[in-house]
Amino acid sequence: MSWTKDDVVFMRKAHSLAKLAEGRTTPDPMVGAVLVKGGKIISMGYHGEVATPHAEAWAIQKIGKKAEGSTLYLNLEPCSHYGNNPPCAGLVASSGIKEVVASMKDPNPLVDGQGFKLLRKHGVKVRVGLLEKEAERLNEVFVKYVTTKRPFVVMKTAMTIDGKIATRTGVSRWVAGPESLNFAHHLRNVYDAILVGINNVLIDDPRLTTRLVKKIKNPIRIVLDAYARTPLNAALLGKEARTIIVVGPNAPNKRLEALKARGVEILRIRAPKGLVDLGDLMIKLGEMKITSLLVEGGGEVNASFLEQNLVDKVHFIIAPKIFGGRDAKTGVEGLGVRVPSQAKWLKDVQIDNLGKDLLLTAYL
Amino acid sequence: MSWTKDDVVFMRKAHSLAKLAEGRTTPDPMVGAVLVKGGKIISMGYHGEVATPHAEAWAIQKIGKKAEGSTLYLNLEPCSHYGNNPPCAGLVASSGIKEVVASMKDPNPLVDGQGFKLLRKHGVKVRVGLLEKEAERLNEVFVKYVTTKRPFVVMKTAMTIDGKIATRTGVSRWVAGPESLNFAHHLRNVYDAILVGINNVLIDDPRLTTRLVKKIKNPIRIVLDAYARTPLNAALLGKEARTIIVVGPNAPNKRLEALKARGVEILRIRAPKGLVDLGDLMIKLGEMKITSLLVEGGGEVNASFLEQNLVDKVHFIIAPKIFGGRDAKTGVEGLGVRVPSQAKWLKDVQIDNLGKDLLLTAYL
Repeated sequence: MSWTKDDVVFMRKAHSLAKLAEGRTTPDPMVGAVLVKGGKIISMGYHGEVATPHAEAWAIQKIGKKAEGSTLYLNLEPCSHYGNNPPCAGLVASSGIKEVVASMKDPNPLVDGQGFKLLRKHGVKVRVGLLEKEAERLNEVFVKYVTTKRPFVVMKTAMTIDGKIATRTGVSRWVAGPESLNFAHHLRNVYDAILVGINNVLIDDPRLTTRLVKKIKNPIRIVLDAYARTPLNAALLGKEARTIIVVGPNAPNKRLEALKARGVEILRIRAPKGLVDLGDLMIKLGEMKITSLLVEGGGEVNASFLEQNLVDKVHFIIAPKIFGGRDAKTGVEGLGVRVPSQAKWLKDVQIDNLGKDLLLTAYL
Repeated sequence: MSWTKDDVVFMRKAHSLAKLAEGRTTPDPMVGAVLVKGGKIISMGYHGEVATPHAEAWAIQKIGKKAEGSTLYLNLEPCSHYGNNPPCAGLVASSGIKEVVASMKDPNPLVDGQGFKLLRKHGVKVRVGLLEKEAERLNEVFVKYVTTKRPFVVMKTAMTIDGKIATRTGVSRWVAGPESLNFAHHLRNVYDAILVGINNVLIDDPRLTTRLVKKIKNPIRIVLDAYARTPLNAALLGKEARTIIVVGPNAPNKRLEALKARGVEILRIRAPKGLVDLGDLMIKLGEMKITSLLVEGGGEVNASFLEQNLVDKVHFIIAPKIFGGRDAKTGVEGLGVRVPSQAKWLKDVQIDNLGKDLLLTAYL
C-alpha cells in the first residue's frame, strides 16, 4: 500500500481528533473521522463519550448529501455490529462515500474485518494500514481490553536518578517536581482505575483523585489490602470517587462490614502467602469493565506486577537529584532477578521533559 | 560584546580543533587556534600534547609573515609566562596579528588576564567571552585543577532503570550494552586516573585499562583499600599501567611490601573508621599532578564521594531494563539523605543515546 502526503496529513488529523476524547470513551475506542472531497476537508467528527454518536456518523450527519463522492479517513475500522449505536459501516456505505482510508482493523472480535467487508460489498474502496502503529498505540487500552478482557496496566513511579522513591526515613513527598505531579493527575484522568498497596495508604494516606488538572473524572481507587487494614478514616474513602478494597479470604468480616458501611466496595480474591493473586484480580477487574489500571505502587507492589508479567506500559519519572541510602526504597523491589539475562527489557523507550524532571515511557 | 555569525563559526572551529587533543594535554589545557584574514581561514593549529608547541604558535609558524593583519580565534587566553613553551601572547603580538578573539580568560593564576594585557599593550585588539560557557566546559578539568590543585572528579555508573547496578546475587556483568562499555573505555582515555573500591577488586577483578577504543593511554589505576587487601594476582596489578593502592594507617606492612614488590605504588592516607579520607586523597592526587579522576565505584564508594561534595560531574548510564530486588545494590548507597530537601541536585542535565542505553550527564 502506498500513501500520498495528503493521506498522511488527513490521517494525522483523524488521530488528533480521536485523541480529543482521551479518557472519556471507555470501554469504547477513541475514533476520529475526517471527510475529504477535492483535496479539502469538508467535515470532521470524533467519538466524544461512550453512548454518544460514533465519529463517522457525526462527521456524515453534519453535511448530509455533500458526503457523496468523498473519502473518509478513520483511525479505526468502522463498526459492523449494533452496540450503543447502529453499525457505522452501513451508514458510511449508504452515504455515498466512495473511499475509506483506515489505520487499522478493529480488533474487537465482533468487528475484526467485518466493517471493511461490508463497505467493499457496497462498492466502497477500502485502504487499510496508514499510521497503523500510531493507531494501535492511540487505542492501546481498547486493543488490550477487547482482545484479552483484562485491563491495560500502566505502572507509574517517580524516583531520583539513583532509583529511590523515598529517602531512607521513608519520606516520599516530594521526589518529583510540580510538572510531574500534574502529569500524574493527567494519568488519573485517562485511566479507569488507580491501584496502590495498603502500605501506601497507611503511610501516605493519599486521596488518589484528579485535582491538579482539568478534571474529566476521578479514577476508581483500588487498594491491595489482603487483611482489610485500610483505616476507616483513610482519605481515599471519600465520596468523590468509587473505592474498591481488594481483600484475601482471611480478611476479618468485622472490618469488611465496617468498610462497606463507609460505602466501599469489597473484592475478595484468593491470596496465597498473604498476597492478593494479581492474575485473578485482573480477570475480575476486566469483568467489571475496568479497561485500564494505573499502578502507583511502592517497590513491592510494582515488583509483584512486573514479576507476573502483568505490566503493559511504564512511566518512570526521574528527578535530577540523588537521595542515596542503602536502605532507601527503590521503584522496583521484590526478590528481583538472579542474573542480568533474566532482566525485564523495556522497548520503544521515549524520553520527555516534565519541568526539571525526565519522563521515561516504555513498553514491556 | 556583540559577535558576528562569522565570529561564532570561527570560534566553533577553534573549539573543535582544541578537542582533537582530548585526553592528551594533561596537565595543560586543550587549545585550538584559527587565523582569519579577509573572512577566510588562513591557518589553524591546536595544542596536541603536553610539551609540544601551543596552538597559537603552531598556527602562526605555519604561515609566517602572512599572519600580519589577521584575526586569531582562540578558546583560551594566550599564555603570558614561560612553561614548557615561551609565552604565546608575546609571539602573537610580534607576528602582526591585529585582533584576538578569545572565549575565556585563562584561570591559571600565572596568566589570569596577563596574556590579554600584554596583547593590548602591543596594540592588539582583544575581544573576550565568545562561547565562554562552552569553553569552560571544554576545559573543565584544567579549570578545576589549575584553580584548586585538586582533580576534577567524574562519577560514572551503569544501572538499570530501577537504579540497580547488579542483580540481587551481585552479578553486574553486564548491566549495560556494548556501546556503553565503549563509552566507559573512552572515559578511561580522557581522564588521568580511574578509582574503584576494594570490593570491586575482590568481586569483579577488573583490569581498568582502555581496551575497547583506539587507545591514547591507560589511566592510572587507584584502589581504595584501607587494609591493603588487594590480592597479589589481581588483574589491575598488570604492568600495562600505573597502579596506586590507597591504604590507611593500619594496613599491615607485610602486605604493603608484597604489593610494592609487584610494582604497585602505595599511598598512605588517614582512614578514620576504616574509610580512607577522600578529602586528603584529593589533595595528595593533586600534588601528584593527577588533574582528573574517574570514579567507577559501587554504591558505597559513590555515596562517600557525593556525601563529601567531591564529585564535579556524573555519567549515569541507564539500561532499558529492570532487575528489581530489595537487596540488589543501587548506584548510590551510603546512609543517604533523611528528607527530600537534602537531596543532591544535578544541573545541566543532558541525555544521549548509547545504543539501547541512555546516558545522563550532569553536574553537581
